[in-house]
Amino acid sequence: MATESTTLDIINSPQTYISELSKHVGQEVVLKGWLYNVRSSGKIAFPQLRDGTGIVQGVALKNTVSPEVWEALKSLGQESSLIVRGTVRADERAPGGYEIDVIDAQVLQEVHDYPITPKEHGTEFLMDQRHLWLRSRRQHAVLKVRHTVVQAVRNFFDNDGFTLADAPILTPAACEGTTTLFEVDYFEGEKAYLTQSGQLYNEATAAAFGKAYCFGPTFRAEKSKTRRHLTEFWMVEPEMAYATLYDVMSLAERMLSHVAQRVLEDRAEELKVLERDTSKLESIVAPFPRLHYDDAVKMLQDGHDAGALENRFEWGGDFGAPDESFISSKFDKPIMVHHYPAIVKAFYMARDPERSELALGVDVLAPEGYGEVIGGGERATSLEFLKEQVRLHQLPQEAFEWYLDLRRYGSVPHAGFGMGIERCTAWMCGIEHIRETIPFPRMLYRIRP
Amino acid sequence: MATESTTLDIINSPQTYISELSKHVGQEVVLKGWLYNVRSSGKIAFPQLRDGTGIVQGVALKNTVSPEVWEALKSLGQESSLIVRGTVRADERAPGGYEIDVIDAQVLQEVHDYPITPKEHGTEFLMDQRHLWLRSRRQHAVLKVRHTVVQAVRNFFDNDGFTLADAPILTPAACEGTTTLFEVDYFEGEKAYLTQSGQLYNEATAAAFGKAYCFGPTFRAEKSKTRRHLTEFWMVEPEMAYATLYDVMSLAERMLSHVAQRVLEDRAEELKVLERDTSKLESIVAPFPRLHYDDAVKMLQDGHDAGALENRFEWGGDFGAPDESFISSKFDKPIMVHHYPAIVKAFYMARDPERSELALGVDVLAPEGYGEVIGGGERATSLEFLKEQVRLHQLPQEAFEWYLDLRRYGSVPHAGFGMGIERCTAWMCGIEHIRETIPFPRMLYRIRP
Repeated sequence: MATESTTLDIINSPQTYISELSKHVGQEVVLKGWLYNVRSSGKIAFPQLRDGTGIVQGVALKNTVSPEVWEALKSLGQESSLIVRGTVRADERAPGGYEIDVIDAQVLQEVHDYPITPKEHGTEFLMDQRHLWLRSRRQHAVLKVRHTVVQAVRNFFDNDGFTLADAPILTPAACEGTTTLFEVDYFEGEKAYLTQSGQLYNEATAAAFGKAYCFGPTFRAEKSKTRRHLTEFWMVEPEMAYATLYDVMSLAERMLSHVAQRVLEDRAEELKVLERDTSKLESIVAPFPRLHYDDAVKMLQDGHDAGALENRFEWGGDFGAPDESFISSKFDKPIMVHHYPAIVKAFYMARDPERSELALGVDVLAPEGYGEVIGGGERATSLEFLKEQVRLHQLPQEAFEWYLDLRRYGSVPHAGFGMGIERCTAWMCGIEHIRETIPFPRMLYRIRP
Repeated sequence: MATESTTLDIINSPQTYISELSKHVGQEVVLKGWLYNVRSSGKIAFPQLRDGTGIVQGVALKNTVSPEVWEALKSLGQESSLIVRGTVRADERAPGGYEIDVIDAQVLQEVHDYPITPKEHGTEFLMDQRHLWLRSRRQHAVLKVRHTVVQAVRNFFDNDGFTLADAPILTPAACEGTTTLFEVDYFEGEKAYLTQSGQLYNEATAAAFGKAYCFGPTFRAEKSKTRRHLTEFWMVEPEMAYATLYDVMSLAERMLSHVAQRVLEDRAEELKVLERDTSKLESIVAPFPRLHYDDAVKMLQDGHDAGALENRFEWGGDFGAPDESFISSKFDKPIMVHHYPAIVKAFYMARDPERSELALGVDVLAPEGYGEVIGGGERATSLEFLKEQVRLHQLPQEAFEWYLDLRRYGSVPHAGFGMGIERCTAWMCGIEHIRETIPFPRMLYRIRP
């Protein structure tokens, strides 16, 4: 049988990360990573090393490194794994501000046929190579932004007095019908469904903790092939007891402002890689404009009359992508549209006491055509009203008895929202397609690798 | 159609949370919550209010509140929703240190038949009422500890230079066979499986980010009905490029020390509710003792010879629960057992270069009988070795081609571990059964509510 051994001698020399070179100027360091690129000319070679925290250029002179190292550096292909010993030198001209004067190098694995080359590849090819594509500068930047979005969201809720209470993934019934649910074989022929939202469970935890949130993967078995749909995506859903629609709007704008601020501060380098217009992110500052659905409809109809929208929008419908884009184009901040017709919203939404045809719901529409990033509102508190809604929506009341209990035992006004992490990340990054904002995207025709 | 209205007048008075009463001594505040309990005698009543952040006792005098409020306070049942206006008074004798001199109260919903009473209920009944049971003092405390465990784990990795890179939940193939996998109907007859571990994906992200972690739900379709098994549980899995078994041990002990410290500091009140012996948590300080598998076997055989263990443990096997308990009982800290026989570990584990029958793996065994909380180690780097392992384990090589690519394109030593959040939480809380450590547990015979 083949056996496996590790090169302990190399591994044991302490590693300096490229992101920390500024602390080691003038010092000898050991960098461990992968060859990103190499140029050489005559007696000088410039190997670029990446280690996952950054990319740095080395400078190797033929007459200061050993002949073996010189030959190796010149001939290595992209993604060869190697360890470089050298001295850190500050250089304003260098990307990142530092270079490494190479003293020695050790190659762990020589690679010559790395499948992703600087030439243009098709998206399907790159998605098939997703496990490697993640190493590319742009993908790396997108996922660093995602990291910061998740971290900022969690810190925001933790610091705002929310308790993390994860909702279950395997659920016995659907919030809103079973047509877009993935079915799972549980035990002994029993069926379960992958969650679409932790919403109903959050209403229980909000009553237990006052303010609670869940943050996990959610699933939609929609046969959509748009740039805004994944079948598996992450969602954060806060819920507050003793709260109204207006508390939700305030929470949403504070959270988004915090997220944008963290991305701007922590991911400045990555935003440069992505060529993001950061002025767009700088304008994400609370308060956000608020627009009653009635006024949004008027805006759309005026837009149609002026020839800016092909179809005339009629009161009572839900907005399509062109409608959302048109509305958000009128503002330089995210816009909060509220008081939608109840008929286009979920059965559990509370109604406007003055106009019962309206739901106390809000959608936050991101600028630049990113559309809805947040949906939420106030939940109905009346047991009788909810029983009727369950009946009208032809849902099995028995499956909702536990949910109805929340109106039997200490019902209070409560409200919350959901935000898709990948849509938010795509917006922060300013990228076209949501599929690049999650490490291993799941779509209609893709569950690999 | 029934409509729904909210009591905006009440909601609009700003809420003070019970957790923040210390900032409002001598001031008039409005508390919004649920009746936890009430005693009355003659002309004085003591309603206890909970709001999700704490419980406080009110003092209401018959001659200082209105007759309606007096009658209401005396007759309300548990979990009635109500809003109390009163003055905060520091009182050393009060649990929490404060009391409320009640001025006024408004009842939102009177409740008289709350199903969970102070009497003893069976676990199945309480699990059926999980959506309400979460409000109970002990369940509330357990889930606040879980919140802190998750937060501490995430902060630890974020501050240690790790990038969050979530692994997919829907996966095309199994790490280690399909017998304990939940099957999902994907699209057009295609099958997917719910992830058991993000391990393989982490190896790709570690090569992209240097240090990466995933943190999400994982699933095991095991027909186990033990106090340590859930079918759906959360797991954190860090993975480091250019790292060895010894780096993993160092990381694991630093992380667990951090988690224990945060729980001790942030959850002191909850640990009192749980009657946790905090000295057990105070001793969770790195470094932890390390024990070679060979020495663990000798310890177990000596234990058998001394009559402390029923069965004699033979070299080559995996430890059972009594074995783990016996080993950990010899130490007052978590114990790290390393260099297990390769045959009991996963196919991707690296081998000891000196003794190829041993895997460079480690399990961290928690004290007090909590058993394995962490498993990890160094991964094999050789393409040929892994191909042979895939063949020996009768896994479909085609499904692992992407994983094998990680050894074709810049293979480096790398290592990581996985920790189950609920097992860690049960240990921190000192509670018997893992089912109380997640808001809505999923087990062999339970996917409701």
